[in-house]
Amino acid sequence: MIKDYIKIIRPLNDVMIGFSVIVGSFIASGRQLPNLYSLLFGFLTGFFISASSMVFNDIMDIEIDKINNPNRPLPSGKIKIRNAYTMFYLFSIIGLLFSALTGIITFIIAIISYFIAYFYNKFGKKSGFLGNIMVAYSMGVPILYGAAMISKLNFNIMVYWLMIFLSGIAREVTKGIADVEGDRKAGIKTIAVIMGEKKAAIIAFIFYAIAILLSPIPVILGKVYPLIYSIPIAIVDMVFLSVSIITIIKPTKQISTKNKNISLLAMFLGLLGFLISTKP
Amino acid sequence: MIKDYIKIIRPLNDVMIGFSVIVGSFIASGRQLPNLYSLLFGFLTGFFISASSMVFNDIMDIEIDKINNPNRPLPSGKIKIRNAYTMFYLFSIIGLLFSALTGIITFIIAIISYFIAYFYNKFGKKSGFLGNIMVAYSMGVPILYGAAMISKLNFNIMVYWLMIFLSGIAREVTKGIADVEGDRKAGIKTIAVIMGEKKAAIIAFIFYAIAILLSPIPVILGKVYPLIYSIPIAIVDMVFLSVSIITIIKPTKQISTKNKNISLLAMFLGLLGFLISTKP
Repeated sequence: MIKDYIKIIRPLNDVMIGFSVIVGSFIASGRQLPNLYSLLFGFLTGFFISASSMVFNDIMDIEIDKINNPNRPLPSGKIKIRNAYTMFYLFSIIGLLFSALTGIITFIIAIISYFIAYFYNKFGKKSGFLGNIMVAYSMGVPILYGAAMISKLNFNIMVYWLMIFLSGIAREVTKGIADVEGDRKAGIKTIAVIMGEKKAAIIAFIFYAIAILLSPIPVILGKVYPLIYSIPIAIVDMVFLSVSIITIIKPTKQISTKNKNISLLAMFLGLLGFLISTKP
Repeated sequence: MIKDYIKIIRPLNDVMIGFSVIVGSFIASGRQLPNLYSLLFGFLTGFFISASSMVFNDIMDIEIDKINNPNRPLPSGKIKIRNAYTMFYLFSIIGLLFSALTGIITFIIAIISYFIAYFYNKFGKKSGFLGNIMVAYSMGVPILYGAAMISKLNFNIMVYWLMIFLSGIAREVTKGIADVEGDRKAGIKTIAVIMGEKKAAIIAFIFYAIAILLSPIPVILGKVYPLIYSIPIAIVDMVFLSVSIITIIKPTKQISTKNKNISLLAMFLGLLGFLISTKP
Protein backbone atom coordinates (compact mmCIF):
# COMPACT_ATOMS: atom_id res chain seq x y z
CA MET A 1 0.00 0.00 0.00
CA ILE A 2 1.07 3.59 -0.65
CA LYS A 3 1.06 4.27 3.12
CA ASP A 4 3.92 1.82 3.66
CA TYR A 5 5.99 3.33 0.88
CA ILE A 6 5.60 6.70 2.57
CA LYS A 7 6.34 5.24 6.00
CA ILE A 8 9.58 3.53 4.97
CA ILE A 9 11.23 6.76 3.78
CA ARG A 10 10.33 8.61 7.05
CA PRO A 11 9.29 11.70 5.09
CA LEU A 12 9.50 14.20 7.94
CA ASN A 13 13.13 13.26 8.64
CA ASP A 14 13.91 13.76 4.96
CA VAL A 15 12.13 17.12 4.87
CA MET A 16 14.19 18.23 7.87
CA ILE A 17 17.46 17.22 6.20
CA GLY A 18 16.39 19.06 3.05
CA PHE A 19 15.66 22.17 5.08
CA SER A 20 18.95 21.92 6.98
CA VAL A 21 20.69 22.50 3.66
CA ILE A 22 18.66 25.69 3.16
CA VAL A 23 19.46 26.79 6.71
CA GLY A 24 23.13 26.09 5.92
CA SER A 25 23.09 28.34 2.87
CA PHE A 26 21.29 30.97 4.97
CA ILE A 27 24.05 30.96 7.56
CA ALA A 28 26.81 30.99 4.96
CA SER A 29 25.29 33.91 3.07
CA GLY A 30 24.48 36.01 6.14
CA ARG A 31 20.70 35.60 5.82
CA GLN A 32 20.40 36.00 2.05
CA LEU A 33 17.89 33.90 0.17
CA PRO A 34 19.56 31.74 -2.50
CA ASN A 35 17.77 31.64 -5.87
CA LEU A 36 14.80 29.31 -6.15
CA TYR A 37 16.77 26.88 -8.33
CA SER A 38 19.49 26.35 -5.68
CA LEU A 39 16.85 26.29 -2.96
CA LEU A 40 14.87 23.53 -4.65
CA PHE A 41 17.85 21.45 -5.79
CA GLY A 42 19.51 21.75 -2.37
CA PHE A 43 16.32 20.67 -0.65
CA LEU A 44 15.78 17.75 -3.03
CA THR A 45 19.37 16.53 -2.66
CA GLY A 46 19.01 16.45 1.12
CA PHE A 47 15.55 14.91 0.89
CA PHE A 48 16.43 12.05 -1.47
CA ILE A 49 19.80 11.14 0.02
CA SER A 50 18.10 11.02 3.41
CA ALA A 51 15.22 8.93 1.98
CA SER A 52 17.66 6.47 0.39
CA SER A 53 19.49 6.17 3.71
CA MET A 54 16.23 5.54 5.61
CA VAL A 55 15.23 2.74 3.22
CA PHE A 56 18.72 1.23 3.43
CA ASN A 57 18.57 1.44 7.22
CA ASP A 58 15.36 -0.60 7.23
CA ILE A 59 16.88 -3.15 4.84
CA MET A 60 19.89 -3.58 7.15
CA ASP A 61 17.73 -3.81 10.29
CA ILE A 62 15.13 -6.25 8.97
CA GLU A 63 16.17 -9.14 11.25
CA ILE A 64 16.24 -6.96 14.38
CA ASP A 65 12.95 -5.31 13.40
CA LYS A 66 11.27 -8.75 13.05
CA ILE A 67 11.62 -8.85 16.85
CA ASN A 68 11.45 -5.18 17.89
CA ASN A 69 9.22 -3.51 15.26
CA PRO A 70 7.34 -6.31 13.47
CA ASN A 71 4.85 -3.81 12.02
CA ARG A 72 7.46 -1.85 10.01
CA PRO A 73 6.91 -2.16 6.24
CA LEU A 74 9.77 -4.65 5.63
CA PRO A 75 9.50 -7.19 8.49
CA SER A 76 5.70 -7.30 8.05
CA GLY A 77 6.17 -8.10 4.36
CA LYS A 78 4.10 -5.12 3.23
CA ILE A 79 7.04 -4.06 1.06
CA LYS A 80 9.19 -6.71 -0.62
CA ILE A 81 12.94 -6.51 -0.02
CA ARG A 82 13.50 -6.37 -3.79
CA ASN A 83 11.25 -3.31 -4.04
CA ALA A 84 13.01 -1.68 -1.08
CA TYR A 85 16.35 -2.13 -2.89
CA THR A 86 14.85 -0.55 -6.02
CA MET A 87 13.69 2.43 -3.94
CA PHE A 88 17.10 2.71 -2.33
CA TYR A 89 18.95 2.77 -5.69
CA LEU A 90 16.42 5.11 -7.26
CA PHE A 91 16.52 7.67 -4.44
CA SER A 92 20.34 7.50 -4.29
CA ILE A 93 20.56 8.31 -8.00
CA ILE A 94 17.97 11.12 -7.82
CA GLY A 95 19.65 12.71 -4.78
CA LEU A 96 23.15 12.56 -6.24
CA LEU A 97 21.86 13.78 -9.61
CA PHE A 98 20.33 16.94 -8.12
CA SER A 99 23.60 17.56 -6.34
CA ALA A 100 25.63 17.07 -9.55
CA LEU A 101 23.35 19.59 -11.28
CA THR A 102 24.17 22.12 -8.53
CA GLY A 103 27.94 22.02 -8.98
CA ILE A 104 31.11 19.98 -8.63
CA ILE A 105 31.87 20.88 -4.97
CA THR A 106 28.32 20.13 -3.86
CA PHE A 107 28.51 16.84 -5.76
CA ILE A 108 31.73 15.85 -3.95
CA ILE A 109 30.24 16.71 -0.54
CA ALA A 110 27.06 14.77 -1.40
CA ILE A 111 29.04 11.69 -2.54
CA ILE A 112 31.15 11.70 0.65
CA SER A 113 28.07 12.16 2.86
CA TYR A 114 26.20 9.48 0.95
CA PHE A 115 28.94 6.91 1.52
CA ILE A 116 29.35 7.86 5.18
CA ALA A 117 25.60 7.28 5.65
CA TYR A 118 25.93 4.01 3.72
CA PHE A 119 28.82 2.71 5.82
CA TYR A 120 27.14 3.83 9.01
CA ASN A 121 24.03 1.80 8.16
CA LYS A 122 26.07 -1.19 7.00
CA PHE A 123 28.81 -1.37 9.64
CA GLY A 124 28.97 1.76 11.73
CA LYS A 125 26.08 1.41 14.15
CA LYS A 126 27.90 -1.29 16.09
CA SER A 127 31.36 0.19 15.78
CA GLY A 128 31.43 2.52 18.79
CA PHE A 129 33.73 5.51 18.35
CA LEU A 130 33.89 5.24 14.55
CA GLY A 131 30.08 5.34 14.51
CA ASN A 132 30.18 8.40 16.78
CA ILE A 133 32.44 10.16 14.29
CA MET A 134 30.11 9.33 11.40
CA VAL A 135 27.05 10.65 13.24
CA ALA A 136 28.88 13.83 14.27
CA TYR A 137 30.03 14.35 10.67
CA SER A 138 26.44 14.15 9.47
CA MET A 139 25.20 16.67 12.03
CA GLY A 140 27.25 19.48 10.51
CA VAL A 141 27.39 18.59 6.84
CA PRO A 142 24.23 20.47 5.75
CA ILE A 143 26.06 23.72 6.61
CA LEU A 144 28.99 22.78 4.37
CA TYR A 145 26.59 21.74 1.61
CA GLY A 146 24.44 24.86 1.89
CA ALA A 147 27.56 27.04 1.79
CA ALA A 148 29.00 25.21 -1.22
CA MET A 149 25.66 25.57 -3.00
CA ILE A 150 26.08 29.37 -3.05
CA SER A 151 29.88 29.28 -3.49
CA LYS A 152 30.51 30.51 0.06
CA LEU A 153 32.47 27.52 1.37
CA ASN A 154 35.11 29.61 3.13
CA PHE A 155 37.39 29.01 6.12
CA ASN A 156 34.82 30.49 8.53
CA ILE A 157 32.13 28.01 7.48
CA MET A 158 34.59 25.16 7.94
CA VAL A 159 35.26 26.39 11.49
CA TYR A 160 31.48 26.33 12.13
CA TRP A 161 31.35 22.79 10.81
CA LEU A 162 34.37 21.74 12.89
CA MET A 163 32.76 23.09 16.07
CA ILE A 164 29.55 21.16 15.34
CA PHE A 165 31.60 18.06 14.50
CA LEU A 166 33.71 18.18 17.69
CA SER A 167 30.82 18.91 20.03
CA GLY A 168 28.81 16.25 18.15
CA ILE A 169 31.52 13.67 18.92
CA ALA A 170 31.57 14.78 22.55
CA ARG A 171 27.78 14.42 22.71
CA GLU A 172 27.83 10.94 21.14
CA VAL A 173 30.51 9.81 23.61
CA THR A 174 28.36 11.17 26.47
CA LYS A 175 25.40 9.28 24.97
CA GLY A 176 27.55 6.14 25.21
CA ILE A 177 27.85 6.69 28.98
CA ALA A 178 24.04 6.82 29.25
CA ASP A 179 23.62 3.66 27.14
CA VAL A 180 26.56 1.70 28.53
CA GLU A 181 24.54 -1.20 29.97
CA GLY A 182 22.52 -1.88 26.84
CA ASP A 183 25.55 -1.38 24.60
CA ARG A 184 27.63 -3.85 26.63
CA LYS A 185 24.92 -6.52 26.28
CA ALA A 186 24.59 -5.83 22.55
CA GLY A 187 28.37 -6.05 22.12
CA ILE A 188 28.72 -2.44 20.92
CA LYS A 189 32.24 -1.30 21.70
CA THR A 190 31.72 2.35 22.68
CA ILE A 191 34.38 4.27 24.59
CA ALA A 192 32.29 3.96 27.77
CA VAL A 193 32.13 0.16 27.32
CA ILE A 194 35.84 -0.26 26.57
CA MET A 195 37.45 2.32 28.85
CA GLY A 196 34.78 2.91 31.48
CA GLU A 197 32.41 5.80 32.11
CA LYS A 198 34.95 8.10 33.81
CA LYS A 199 37.46 8.01 30.95
CA ALA A 200 34.66 8.42 28.41
CA ALA A 201 33.55 11.56 30.27
CA ILE A 202 37.12 12.90 30.14
CA ILE A 203 37.33 12.23 26.39
CA ALA A 204 33.98 14.01 25.86
CA PHE A 205 35.37 16.95 27.85
CA ILE A 206 38.47 17.11 25.62
CA PHE A 207 36.36 17.28 22.44
CA TYR A 208 34.11 19.97 23.94
CA ALA A 209 37.23 21.88 25.06
CA ILE A 210 38.70 21.92 21.53
CA ALA A 211 35.34 23.12 20.14
CA ILE A 212 35.30 25.89 22.75
CA LEU A 213 38.88 26.91 21.92
CA LEU A 214 37.90 27.26 18.25
CA SER A 215 34.90 29.43 19.01
CA PRO A 216 36.66 32.86 18.94
CA ILE A 217 38.02 32.26 15.40
CA PRO A 218 35.01 33.74 13.52
CA VAL A 219 35.45 36.98 15.52
CA ILE A 220 39.20 37.05 14.76
CA LEU A 221 38.47 36.45 11.07
CA GLY A 222 36.02 39.37 11.13
CA LYS A 223 33.28 37.20 9.62
CA VAL A 224 30.70 37.93 12.34
CA TYR A 225 29.22 40.86 14.25
CA PRO A 226 31.32 40.42 17.42
CA LEU A 227 28.73 41.17 20.12
CA ILE A 228 25.85 39.37 18.42
CA TYR A 229 28.07 36.32 17.95
CA SER A 230 29.69 36.37 21.37
CA ILE A 231 26.56 36.44 23.54
CA PRO A 232 24.97 33.17 22.35
CA ILE A 233 28.28 31.42 21.73
CA ALA A 234 29.62 32.29 25.20
CA ILE A 235 26.44 30.78 26.65
CA VAL A 236 26.96 27.64 24.56
CA ASP A 237 30.61 27.41 25.65
CA MET A 238 29.63 27.72 29.31
CA VAL A 239 26.97 25.04 28.91
CA PHE A 240 29.41 22.64 27.21
CA LEU A 241 32.03 23.29 29.86
CA SER A 242 29.70 22.80 32.80
CA VAL A 243 27.86 19.72 31.50
CA SER A 244 31.12 17.97 30.63
CA ILE A 245 32.74 18.74 33.99
CA ILE A 246 29.61 17.58 35.83
CA THR A 247 29.71 14.34 33.82
CA ILE A 248 33.36 13.77 34.80
CA ILE A 249 32.51 14.27 38.48
CA LYS A 250 29.46 11.98 38.28
CA PRO A 251 29.48 9.83 35.13
CA THR A 252 26.13 8.15 35.87
CA LYS A 253 23.35 7.15 33.49
CA GLN A 254 21.04 9.84 34.85
CA ILE A 255 23.55 12.69 34.63
CA SER A 256 24.80 11.78 31.16
CA THR A 257 21.25 11.38 29.79
CA LYS A 258 20.41 14.84 31.04
CA ASN A 259 23.67 16.28 29.76
CA LYS A 260 23.28 14.91 26.25
CA ASN A 261 19.82 16.52 26.07
CA ILE A 262 21.13 19.86 27.33
CA SER A 263 24.00 19.65 24.82
CA LEU A 264 21.59 19.23 21.94
CA LEU A 265 19.68 22.32 23.01
CA ALA A 266 23.00 24.20 23.31
CA MET A 267 24.06 23.07 19.82
CA PHE A 268 20.77 24.37 18.47
CA LEU A 269 21.38 27.68 20.21
CA GLY A 270 24.88 27.81 18.70
CA LEU A 271 23.35 27.33 15.26
CA LEU A 272 20.98 30.25 15.90
CA GLY A 273 24.04 32.22 16.99
CA PHE A 274 25.78 31.51 13.66
CA LEU A 275 22.56 32.41 11.86
CA ILE A 276 22.07 35.84 13.39
CA SER A 277 25.70 36.95 13.60
CA THR A 278 27.33 35.99 10.28
CA LYS A 279 27.99 39.02 8.07
CA PRO A 280 26.52 38.94 4.54
CA MET B 1 24.72 27.38 46.90
CA ILE B 2 25.04 29.29 43.63
CA LYS B 3 24.41 26.02 41.70
CA ASP B 4 20.88 25.78 43.08
CA TYR B 5 20.10 29.38 42.20
CA ILE B 6 21.14 28.62 38.63
CA LYS B 7 19.20 25.34 38.60
CA ILE B 8 15.91 26.83 39.77
CA ILE B 9 15.69 29.32 36.88
CA ARG B 10 16.37 26.56 34.26
CA PRO B 11 18.74 28.84 32.36
CA LEU B 12 18.70 26.98 29.06
CA ASN B 13 14.91 27.23 28.85
CA ASP B 14 15.16 30.95 29.49
CA VAL B 15 17.87 31.38 26.87
CA MET B 16 15.65 29.60 24.36
CA ILE B 17 12.69 31.87 25.11
CA GLY B 18 14.98 34.90 24.78
CA PHE B 19 16.16 33.67 21.41
CA SER B 20 12.63 32.92 20.23
CA VAL B 21 11.95 36.65 20.48
CA ILE B 22 14.94 37.33 18.21
CA VAL B 23 13.75 34.64 15.78
CA GLY B 24 10.33 36.33 15.86
CA SER B 25 11.76 39.69 14.88
CA PHE B 26 13.77 37.93 12.17
CA ILE B 27 10.63 36.46 10.67
CA ALA B 28 8.68 39.70 10.93
CA SER B 29 11.43 41.73 9.26
CA GLY B 30 12.13 39.28 6.46
CA ARG B 31 15.55 38.27 7.79
CA GLN B 32 16.84 41.68 8.80
CA LEU B 33 18.91 42.05 11.93
CA PRO B 34 17.29 44.43 14.45
CA ASN B 35 19.66 46.88 16.13
CA LEU B 36 21.74 45.58 19.00
CA TYR B 37 19.66 47.52 21.52
CA SER B 38 16.38 45.81 20.49
CA LEU B 39 18.17 42.49 20.19
CA LEU B 40 19.51 42.65 23.72
CA PHE B 41 16.37 44.05 25.36
CA GLY B 42 14.15 41.55 23.50
CA PHE B 43 16.37 38.70 24.62
CA LEU B 44 16.49 39.89 28.23
CA THR B 45 12.70 40.36 28.40
CA GLY B 46 12.16 36.79 27.23
CA PHE B 47 14.92 35.49 29.50
CA PHE B 48 13.75 37.15 32.73
CA ILE B 49 10.02 36.60 32.27
CA SER B 50 10.77 32.94 31.59
CA ALA B 51 13.09 32.78 34.63
CA SER B 52 10.43 34.32 36.88
CA SER B 53 7.89 31.82 35.59
CA MET B 54 10.27 28.88 36.23
CA VAL B 55 10.84 29.98 39.84
CA PHE B 56 7.11 30.48 40.36
CA ASN B 57 6.46 27.05 38.87
CA ASP B 58 8.78 25.48 41.44
CA ILE B 59 7.11 27.44 44.25
CA MET B 60 3.68 26.17 43.17
CA ASP B 61 4.89 22.58 42.76
CA ILE B 62 6.81 22.29 46.03
CA GLU B 63 4.43 19.77 47.64
CA ILE B 64 4.35 17.54 44.54
CA ASP B 65 8.12 17.83 44.13
CA LYS B 66 8.67 16.70 47.73
CA ILE B 67 7.46 13.33 46.44
CA ASN B 68 8.52 13.34 42.77
CA ASN B 69 11.70 15.47 42.69
CA PRO B 70 12.95 15.75 46.27
CA ASN B 71 16.37 16.96 45.07
CA ARG B 72 15.04 20.13 43.41
CA PRO B 73 16.28 23.32 45.14
CA LEU B 74 13.01 24.10 46.95
CA PRO B 75 11.81 20.72 48.32
CA SER B 76 15.37 19.89 49.43
CA GLY B 77 15.52 23.17 51.35
CA LYS B 78 18.65 24.37 49.52
CA ILE B 79 16.75 27.54 48.63
CA LYS B 80 14.31 29.02 51.13
CA ILE B 81 10.77 29.72 49.91
CA ARG B 82 11.14 33.36 50.94
CA ASN B 83 14.25 33.71 48.77
CA ALA B 84 12.45 32.02 45.88
CA TYR B 85 9.66 34.58 46.15
CA THR B 86 12.25 37.38 46.14
CA MET B 87 13.80 35.93 42.97
CA PHE B 88 10.36 35.62 41.39
CA TYR B 89 9.45 39.27 42.06
CA LEU B 90 12.88 40.53 41.06
CA PHE B 91 12.94 38.68 37.73
CA SER B 92 9.35 39.70 36.98
CA ILE B 93 10.24 43.36 37.47
CA ILE B 94 13.47 43.14 35.44
CA GLY B 95 11.73 41.34 32.56
CA LEU B 96 8.80 43.74 32.41
CA LEU B 97 11.14 46.72 32.77
CA PHE B 98 13.21 45.73 29.73
CA SER B 99 9.97 45.32 27.81
CA ALA B 100 8.67 48.74 28.90
CA LEU B 101 11.96 50.27 27.74
CA THR B 102 11.38 48.75 24.29
CA GLY B 103 7.96 50.30 23.69
CA ILE B 104 4.31 50.44 24.69
CA ILE B 105 3.08 47.58 22.43
CA THR B 106 5.87 45.26 23.54
CA PHE B 107 5.08 46.15 27.15
CA ILE B 108 1.40 45.26 26.69
CA ILE B 109 2.28 41.92 25.07
CA ALA B 110 4.78 41.19 27.85
CA ILE B 111 2.24 42.00 30.58
CA ILE B 112 -0.41 39.76 29.00
CA SER B 113 2.07 36.91 28.51
CA TYR B 114 3.38 37.35 32.02
CA PHE B 115 -0.09 36.99 33.55
CA ILE B 116 -0.98 34.06 31.33
CA ALA B 117 2.19 32.29 32.53
CA TYR B 118 1.28 33.27 36.10
CA PHE B 119 -2.27 31.92 35.91
CA TYR B 120 -1.09 28.80 34.16
CA ASN B 121 1.34 28.04 36.99
CA LYS B 122 -1.22 28.91 39.65
CA PHE B 123 -4.40 27.34 38.29
CA GLY B 124 -4.02 26.33 34.66
CA LYS B 125 -2.03 23.12 34.80
CA LYS B 126 -4.99 21.21 36.17
CA SER B 127 -7.64 22.97 34.15
CA GLY B 128 -7.66 20.90 30.97
CA PHE B 129 -8.74 22.83 27.90
CA LEU B 130 -8.11 26.28 29.43
CA GLY B 131 -4.56 25.13 30.20
CA ASN B 132 -4.21 23.93 26.60
CA ILE B 133 -5.16 27.37 25.35
CA MET B 134 -2.63 29.06 27.64
CA VAL B 135 0.19 26.77 26.49
CA ALA B 136 -0.74 27.26 22.82
CA TYR B 137 -0.80 31.03 23.34
CA SER B 138 2.73 30.93 24.76
CA MET B 139 4.07 28.89 21.85
CA GLY B 140 3.40 31.68 19.36
CA VAL B 141 3.82 34.82 21.42
CA PRO B 142 7.58 35.33 20.80
CA ILE B 143 6.71 35.99 17.11
CA LEU B 144 4.23 38.71 18.11
CA TYR B 145 6.72 40.18 20.55
CA GLY B 146 9.64 40.09 18.11
CA ALA B 147 7.47 41.75 15.45
CA ALA B 148 6.25 44.44 17.85
CA MET B 149 9.85 45.11 18.88
CA ILE B 150 10.66 46.30 15.36
CA SER B 151 7.22 47.88 14.75
CA LYS B 152 6.23 45.19 12.24
CA LEU B 153 3.20 43.81 14.06
CA ASN B 154 1.01 43.62 10.94
CA PHE B 155 -1.95 41.46 9.94
CA ASN B 156 0.34 38.86 8.32
CA ILE B 157 2.27 38.29 11.56
CA MET B 158 -1.00 37.88 13.43
CA VAL B 159 -2.02 35.19 10.93
CA TYR B 160 1.28 33.41 11.61
CA TRP B 161 0.58 33.62 15.32
CA LEU B 162 -2.99 32.38 14.86
CA MET B 163 -1.80 29.35 12.89
CA ILE B 164 0.71 28.49 15.63
CA PHE B 165 -1.97 29.05 18.29
CA LEU B 166 -4.59 26.85 16.58
CA SER B 167 -2.23 24.01 15.76
CA GLY B 168 -0.81 24.37 19.27
CA ILE B 169 -4.28 23.83 20.76
CA ALA B 170 -4.77 20.83 18.46
CA ARG B 171 -1.46 19.41 19.59
CA GLU B 172 -2.24 19.91 23.29
CA VAL B 173 -5.60 18.19 22.87
CA THR B 174 -3.83 15.29 21.11
CA LYS B 175 -1.36 15.20 24.02
CA GLY B 176 -4.38 14.80 26.31
CA ILE B 177 -5.33 11.64 24.42
CA ALA B 178 -1.86 10.24 25.05
CA ASP B 179 -1.97 11.13 28.77
CA VAL B 180 -5.62 10.28 29.41
CA GLU B 181 -4.98 7.54 32.00
CA GLY B 182 -2.63 9.57 34.16
CA ASP B 183 -4.77 12.71 33.81
CA ARG B 184 -7.92 10.85 34.88
CA LYS B 185 -6.17 9.58 38.03
CA ALA B 186 -4.81 13.05 38.79
CA GLY B 187 -8.26 14.58 38.31
CA ILE B 188 -7.20 16.77 35.35
CA LYS B 189 -10.26 17.45 33.25
CA THR B 190 -8.85 17.42 29.72
CA ILE B 191 -11.14 17.02 26.72
CA ALA B 192 -10.03 13.40 26.35
CA VAL B 193 -10.97 12.71 29.99
CA ILE B 194 -14.37 14.44 29.80
CA MET B 195 -15.54 13.59 26.30
CA GLY B 196 -13.48 10.52 25.45
CA GLU B 197 -10.53 9.99 23.12
CA LYS B 198 -12.52 9.85 19.88
CA LYS B 199 -14.23 13.22 20.37
CA ALA B 200 -10.94 14.77 21.52
CA ALA B 201 -9.37 13.58 18.26
CA ILE B 202 -12.20 15.18 16.28
CA ILE B 203 -11.75 18.47 18.15
CA ALA B 204 -8.00 18.38 17.47
CA PHE B 205 -8.80 17.80 13.79
CA ILE B 206 -11.11 20.85 13.72
CA PHE B 207 -8.39 23.13 15.15
CA TYR B 208 -5.82 21.79 12.69
CA ALA B 209 -8.34 22.27 9.86
CA ILE B 210 -8.87 25.96 10.72
CA ALA B 211 -5.09 26.48 10.87
CA ILE B 212 -4.77 24.83 7.44
CA LEU B 213 -7.56 26.99 5.99
CA LEU B 214 -5.72 30.12 7.18
CA SER B 215 -2.43 29.07 5.61
CA PRO B 216 -2.96 30.61 2.12
CA ILE B 217 -3.61 34.09 3.59
CA PRO B 218 0.05 35.28 3.58
CA VAL B 219 0.21 34.46 -0.16
CA ILE B 220 -3.04 36.35 -0.81
CA LEU B 221 -1.72 39.32 1.19
CA GLY B 222 1.44 39.28 -0.93
CA LYS B 223 3.61 39.20 2.18
CA VAL B 224 5.62 36.11 1.17
CA TYR B 225 7.47 34.71 -1.84
CA PRO B 226 4.67 32.36 -3.01
CA LEU B 227 6.69 29.30 -4.07
CA ILE B 228 9.16 29.43 -1.19
CA TYR B 229 6.26 29.74 1.25
CA SER B 230 4.01 27.16 -0.34
CA ILE B 231 6.43 24.22 -0.46
CA PRO B 232 7.14 23.92 3.28
CA ILE B 233 3.66 25.05 4.34
CA ALA B 234 1.93 22.57 2.05
CA ILE B 235 4.06 19.83 3.63
CA VAL B 236 3.06 21.03 7.11
CA ASP B 237 -0.62 21.14 6.11
CA MET B 238 -0.45 17.59 4.78
CA VAL B 239 1.26 16.39 7.95
CA PHE B 240 -1.36 18.05 10.18
CA LEU B 241 -4.18 16.64 8.07
CA SER B 242 -2.85 13.09 8.00
CA VAL B 243 -1.84 12.87 11.69
CA SER B 244 -5.18 14.21 12.85
CA ILE B 245 -7.19 11.88 10.60
CA ILE B 246 -5.09 8.92 11.72
CA THR B 247 -5.76 9.88 15.36
CA ILE B 248 -9.52 9.98 14.72
CA ILE B 249 -9.40 6.51 13.17
CA LYS B 250 -7.26 5.12 15.98
CA PRO B 251 -7.25 7.38 19.07
CA THR B 252 -4.85 5.20 21.10
CA LYS B 253 -2.06 6.24 23.45
CA GLN B 254 0.61 5.00 21.05
CA ILE B 255 -0.76 6.76 17.95
CA SER B 256 -1.42 10.06 19.70
CA THR B 257 2.03 10.09 21.35
CA LYS B 258 3.62 9.61 17.95
CA ASN B 259 1.35 12.21 16.37
CA LYS B 260 2.08 14.91 18.92
CA ASN B 261 5.81 14.42 18.29
CA ILE B 262 5.36 14.57 14.51
CA SER B 263 3.21 17.71 14.93
CA LEU B 264 5.96 19.46 16.86
CA LEU B 265 8.44 18.71 14.09
CA ALA B 266 5.90 19.99 11.54
CA MET B 267 5.38 23.20 13.55
CA PHE B 268 9.12 23.74 13.59
CA LEU B 269 9.19 23.23 9.82
CA GLY B 270 6.36 25.74 9.44
CA LEU B 271 8.40 28.28 11.42
CA LEU B 272 11.35 27.73 9.08
CA GLY B 273 8.90 28.23 6.21
CA PHE B 274 7.82 31.62 7.63
CA LEU B 275 11.48 32.50 8.16
CA ILE B 276 12.67 31.87 4.63
CA SER B 277 9.62 33.10 2.73
CA THR B 278 8.57 36.38 4.39
CA LYS B 279 9.41 39.43 2.27
CA PRO B 280 11.53 42.17 3.89
